[in-house]
Amino acid sequence: MVSIRRHLHQNPELSFKEEKTAAYIKSFYEDLGIEVRGNVGGNGVVAKIYGSLPGKIVALRADFDALPIQDEKDVPYKSLVPGVMHACGHDGHTATLLVLAKALHELRDELEGTYVMIHQHAEEYAPGGAISMIEDGCLEGVDVIFGTHLWASEPTGTIQYRVGPVMAAADRFEITIQGKGGHGAQPHRTKDSIVTASQLVVNLQQIVSRKVNPIDSAVVTVGSFVADNAFNVIADRAKLIGTVRTFNEEVREFIEGEIERITKGTCYTADSTYDYLYAKGYPAVVNHKEETDYLVTCAGQIDGVTRIEETEPHMGGEDFAYYLQHRKGTFFFTGAKPEYTDENYPHHHPKFDIDEKAMLIAAKTLGSAAINYHASEKIKQAIS
Amino acid sequence: MVSIRRHLHQNPELSFKEEKTAAYIKSFYEDLGIEVRGNVGGNGVVAKIYGSLPGKIVALRADFDALPIQDEKDVPYKSLVPGVMHACGHDGHTATLLVLAKALHELRDELEGTYVMIHQHAEEYAPGGAISMIEDGCLEGVDVIFGTHLWASEPTGTIQYRVGPVMAAADRFEITIQGKGGHGAQPHRTKDSIVTASQLVVNLQQIVSRKVNPIDSAVVTVGSFVADNAFNVIADRAKLIGTVRTFNEEVREFIEGEIERITKGTCYTADSTYDYLYAKGYPAVVNHKEETDYLVTCAGQIDGVTRIEETEPHMGGEDFAYYLQHRKGTFFFTGAKPEYTDENYPHHHPKFDIDEKAMLIAAKTLGSAAINYHASEKIKQAIS
Amino acid sequence: MVSIRRHLHQNPELSFKEEKTAAYIKSFYEDLGIEVRGNVGGNGVVAKIYGSLPGKIVALRADFDALPIQDEKDVPYKSLVPGVMHACGHDGHTATLLVLAKALHELRDELEGTYVMIHQHAEEYAPGGAISMIEDGCLEGVDVIFGTHLWASEPTGTIQYRVGPVMAAADRFEITIQGKGGHGAQPHRTKDSIVTASQLVVNLQQIVSRKVNPIDSAVVTVGSFVADNAFNVIADRAKLIGTVRTFNEEVREFIEGEIERITKGTCYTADSTYDYLYAKGYPAVVNHKEETDYLVTCAGQIDGVTRIEETEPHMGGEDFAYYLQHRKGTFFFTGAKPEYTDENYPHHHPKFDIDEKAMLIAAKTLGSAAINYHASEKIKQAIS
Amino acid sequence: MVSIRRHLHQNPELSFKEEKTAAYIKSFYEDLGIEVRGNVGGNGVVAKIYGSLPGKIVALRADFDALPIQDEKDVPYKSLVPGVMHACGHDGHTATLLVLAKALHELRDELEGTYVMIHQHAEEYAPGGAISMIEDGCLEGVDVIFGTHLWASEPTGTIQYRVGPVMAAADRFEITIQGKGGHGAQPHRTKDSIVTASQLVVNLQQIVSRKVNPIDSAVVTVGSFVADNAFNVIADRAKLIGTVRTFNEEVREFIEGEIERITKGTCYTADSTYDYLYAKGYPAVVNHKEETDYLVTCAGQIDGVTRIEETEPHMGGEDFAYYLQHRKGTFFFTGAKPEYTDENYPHHHPKFDIDEKAMLIAAKTLGSAAINYHASEKIKQAIS
Repeated sequence: MVSIRRHLHQNPELSFKEEKTAAYIKSFYEDLGIEVRGNVGGNGVVAKIYGSLPGKIVALRADFDALPIQDEKDVPYKSLVPGVMHACGHDGHTATLLVLAKALHELRDELEGTYVMIHQHAEEYAPGGAISMIEDGCLEGVDVIFGTHLWASEPTGTIQYRVGPVMAAADRFEITIQGKGGHGAQPHRTKDSIVTASQLVVNLQQIVSRKVNPIDSAVVTVGSFVADNAFNVIADRAKLIGTVRTFNEEVREFIEGEIERITKGTCYTADSTYDYLYAKGYPAVVNHKEETDYLVTCAGQIDGVTRIEETEPHMGGEDFAYYLQHRKGTFFFTGAKPEYTDENYPHHHPKFDIDEKAMLIAAKTLGSAAINYHASEKIKQAIS
Repeated sequence: MVSIRRHLHQNPELSFKEEKTAAYIKSFYEDLGIEVRGNVGGNGVVAKIYGSLPGKIVALRADFDALPIQDEKDVPYKSLVPGVMHACGHDGHTATLLVLAKALHELRDELEGTYVMIHQHAEEYAPGGAISMIEDGCLEGVDVIFGTHLWASEPTGTIQYRVGPVMAAADRFEITIQGKGGHGAQPHRTKDSIVTASQLVVNLQQIVSRKVNPIDSAVVTVGSFVADNAFNVIADRAKLIGTVRTFNEEVREFIEGEIERITKGTCYTADSTYDYLYAKGYPAVVNHKEETDYLVTCAGQIDGVTRIEETEPHMGGEDFAYYLQHRKGTFFFTGAKPEYTDENYPHHHPKFDIDEKAMLIAAKTLGSAAINYHASEKIKQAIS
Repeated sequence: MVSIRRHLHQNPELSFKEEKTAAYIKSFYEDLGIEVRGNVGGNGVVAKIYGSLPGKIVALRADFDALPIQDEKDVPYKSLVPGVMHACGHDGHTATLLVLAKALHELRDELEGTYVMIHQHAEEYAPGGAISMIEDGCLEGVDVIFGTHLWASEPTGTIQYRVGPVMAAADRFEITIQGKGGHGAQPHRTKDSIVTASQLVVNLQQIVSRKVNPIDSAVVTVGSFVADNAFNVIADRAKLIGTVRTFNEEVREFIEGEIERITKGTCYTADSTYDYLYAKGYPAVVNHKEETDYLVTCAGQIDGVTRIEETEPHMGGEDFAYYLQHRKGTFFFTGAKPEYTDENYPHHHPKFDIDEKAMLIAAKTLGSAAINYHASEKIKQAIS
Repeated sequence: MVSIRRHLHQNPELSFKEEKTAAYIKSFYEDLGIEVRGNVGGNGVVAKIYGSLPGKIVALRADFDALPIQDEKDVPYKSLVPGVMHACGHDGHTATLLVLAKALHELRDELEGTYVMIHQHAEEYAPGGAISMIEDGCLEGVDVIFGTHLWASEPTGTIQYRVGPVMAAADRFEITIQGKGGHGAQPHRTKDSIVTASQLVVNLQQIVSRKVNPIDSAVVTVGSFVADNAFNVIADRAKLIGTVRTFNEEVREFIEGEIERITKGTCYTADSTYDYLYAKGYPAVVNHKEETDYLVTCAGQIDGVTRIEETEPHMGGEDFAYYLQHRKGTFFFTGAKPEYTDENYPHHHPKFDIDEKAMLIAAKTLGSAAINYHASEKIKQAIS
């Protein structure tokens, strides 16, 4: 598992360009004689392992793209590709799933049901690989799906779960304010787009402070404000770019509309016009209650799991969200804080790393969830 | 002159209620056998003195109403009416004009033209007395009009003039923001009218800072902001009341519209509604160039005038403005700073007073302007 | 139970003035020969019922004050006191606890442990009765405490619970901005307190929008903005009053400081000064996990309970919070929507009422939680 | 005069790089045998013509630098230097002064006093050439100075004058807001510099709207706002660059301090820091009353002058201001709207041009002012 992970770590590929990684995964399955399909919705790879006994169809997902970051770690398995790095642990996800698949394949005579290994490309870059893989049939017949993220901020041995929204919808917006430029000494002949856009930034604060239910979490951030002119000129236009994070589709829709309402009103006060673009990123990852409770039970029986806890929702996005819109399932976090350093570099940091021992815990937990799912379902049916 | 002024000072009457003062003025003229008409457009009084020689018709105006202020001066001629006071010098204006009229009446055999003494009520309270007196014919046949204000911030001996706008248009506006009230802990179910009105106050600053030509003077003041609720409630409505001061009719019209534009846009951002009322007060007093230049020449020859200077325009209002919309003329300031105190109490202050010696200078300057006007006009016609 | 409730409903007393109600409660216990103490921390009443077997000490709490609201219901048991009304269900809480106490008293020979009945005065009015009752020893020796609120927005049969924060801390703040008043036409000689206070209201929005973790709920509301002047005056001072709601003590402290920081900075920009008062109300009610889970188990076995569900946290305050700062326990909601009307009048509404049948469910749930607690604790100890 | 102007027009040189133009001017004087000094305070050139009779020393000034603008006119005398152009009429100023000097030189036997021809480099680019030329003695012994600007927005034949401030002080400021950057979804861990800078832009509006006397003109413009980041990042810093225009040194100093006050307070509210730079450009051009009145009298007697009018003050800057800080004098505008096109291209426009006939009017007016000054002064002395 470690050697696979290190191979991938040294050979990272950017989102939508993961040809070699996809080929590597595919040949891994082919070498084992496992049914595998490549080019699923792009660079996606899907393998299937059939248990000899009848049962449910359980999908497990791992993503395999890397990031445009220069690896600055001082380790032997450092990235060999300048400016590209597995700085989010997707290499570990892939190694975990491959080795787990090999184990399931070996146990296939004793297993119930079918196991679908979804190796997804392009998680890091919207629109992501999940949508196209789903469109290309990767969830066909699937009853339930599980996924995990190796999580470097928590120590190995930790499993974090949450029922309901666990990762936010992450959207992007752009607003261009079109005023009327002119000489800096003659404001009355202009429509000052910097003042208008500043007023807009201030007004947008009220969405979260006044208009969203305080119980709901939401973020509206303007990350970029550019009106780049000479000092003695009044700005003709100003451009704002930002992000919206929500956990609730209703709040998300509301904010999309509210930004426009506030932009429209603010521009009206300034007799100016605007362009507004709202690009939806991944929706919120919303875990299903039964499957999450079930996952917690499974995790409780895994050797090496020392702490199981509810996590706060995260404001970051993840396209596992799409799978959960189509199938029951849950997405959980597997603690993977490296032990070789006291520093705790966050995901997407040039010195990010994972504790490779965590991969085994992830594999066991996913494997237990997959194998025991059939019995669990039978019990549920018997009870009801 | 002093005793007349002191009589008036002790017996002040509020705007539109100056019956006794009007009667006093009227009987002053009747006693002298001068043609006089009372109840002109209300409590106004107009007297006419006919010179024996042909000439122009020259009007002189003095106002005679007082203010709802408690006199706190420690002088023997202090107001006898509780809560009412001549705190703006109108008593002095009236005494000046009466005594000047007496002098003109005595000189009538040597005088050219006709002299119309306009004693105006209700200058302090919009819509003022000027409009109704004009409608009631006080300017009929008049060729030119002069008026002065005793001015307590300048020493006696000073005459201040200005061509063009010398006192501002003074308007009033009211804006009611109608949001949607509710529980202070549930902003998302409300439309917070305090936030909206606050945003509006902030936005209104841009009228003067960005939208009016920096060369033009303008003031937009919100003087009152009331949304008076319990601490744990979100305000259903908020009311703003304010004033606009301008010197230029175009700027005035623009601001009237611009306040509404900004209110409309700001309410749109908050999904709220508004009521907007804009009540025009007196327009700007705009002095005519030729008559002002002429007045300056006259003032230069008056004994006791030691300083003649251009004044900055004043942001306060004066309904002399209406006379100058109908006839040529000028309105000037006669320094009248009291000598008995080092303090310089502003107009409308409970300890306001004038230097009574200034009345003589005012009378002489007005008288000179009136008498010499005929010769002046003849010279002009000869030249052209 | 109904007749007790109706008696109390017809004879409501305001917070801190509940002498007759306290006497009524005390004599109820005295009549039954139950140990009872009056004047606990004010008008509070505490009764104790001793089971014949050893065990834990379990407290149950009910509040008994009413509100300054005119009863507008059209029912026979309508309030007899003009302007005072049980508009929050405290009459029902009291009736529930009295009847439950009687039952426990009757069963005392079979019961383990001790049962402390805390009848609390003054829940509706800060600082509330809980603090002084705790200081006066009402929790002495107590191991666990349970309380419930009859909840008119949910149908009878519903039990709502929540682990962690379930009701918000509710604080009050007052800010007076001291600028420098003056004539509405001369802003440059003043410090316009309306503009400064408006700027402050706008700036305060950033606390929730930018400075509090989006995962945490918080509300900052300015409920009152008063600067009440003539239209042509610049406001000398402006007063803001508002409320802060939080579920987390750290966020609460942060916001208290942040409001002052923003006020200080905003006043600095305007060369103005301020007074700031922050009055803490009740802290957040934070339910303990084990006791809440236990309560849910108990509720599941109660006849008549048809729905048990997690509730969203409520932004309103409740001084049950103090008990949970000193002892383990939980506070839950018992659905009590009246059936005789389709309208659903909220708590504190002049037509508010409860479904009296809900009192029985509340009594059974509280009783079950109290009686079974001893066994539950023994099992826990055996396991660990 | 036209051929000199066209020669200069075709060979423009940028500010501080006008070596060839300076040499051209110097040799013009040398060829005529006029006393001339080069390299005065840089590329400046100063020539002196001595009348045979005693009298005052009168300076006349013309600037000769060009602008970094591509000439887009379709005329035979178009600029030969790519990207450099006389787009402000300085070529015409120079031609005017050279030809006038030649005429004065020819008349020198009949003239009183001395005539100092100040050919100034670098008017377009702060700190400008005037300061260094003054330091290098160009005003030594000078009694009075006159200068004019050919003005393409007014028809030829127009002379515009103004007593007091006629061109604004033009300053530049830069503010960098240093917050604390971070992930766009975690505002609570950051200090959002875009929100802070936006708030600052909004707050700065109050300088003009509330803090400067409405009678004074002032402009505060933020011309550039740059915080250029990814959409999902919170901005670490934001940079504002802008300009301030004033006519009054006291207002100028006040605004310099007030921007910092508001920046400091706004940053305090956001727990952020700032850098503030205020770079003074040219001060206001403030014309002296007597010399302006005198110039108007002279202009009234010039053949070809058809309209003499007071101008509104201009918000643009001009380093003639420095001469008037040291000597009496006036700066006036000579209408020079080209007749060959209906378009009216403003100064600094790629198609800007002047009416060459206006140069003769400028020369005559300056010449008359220079020659008659001696007599005028003698009369004044006789009167007083």
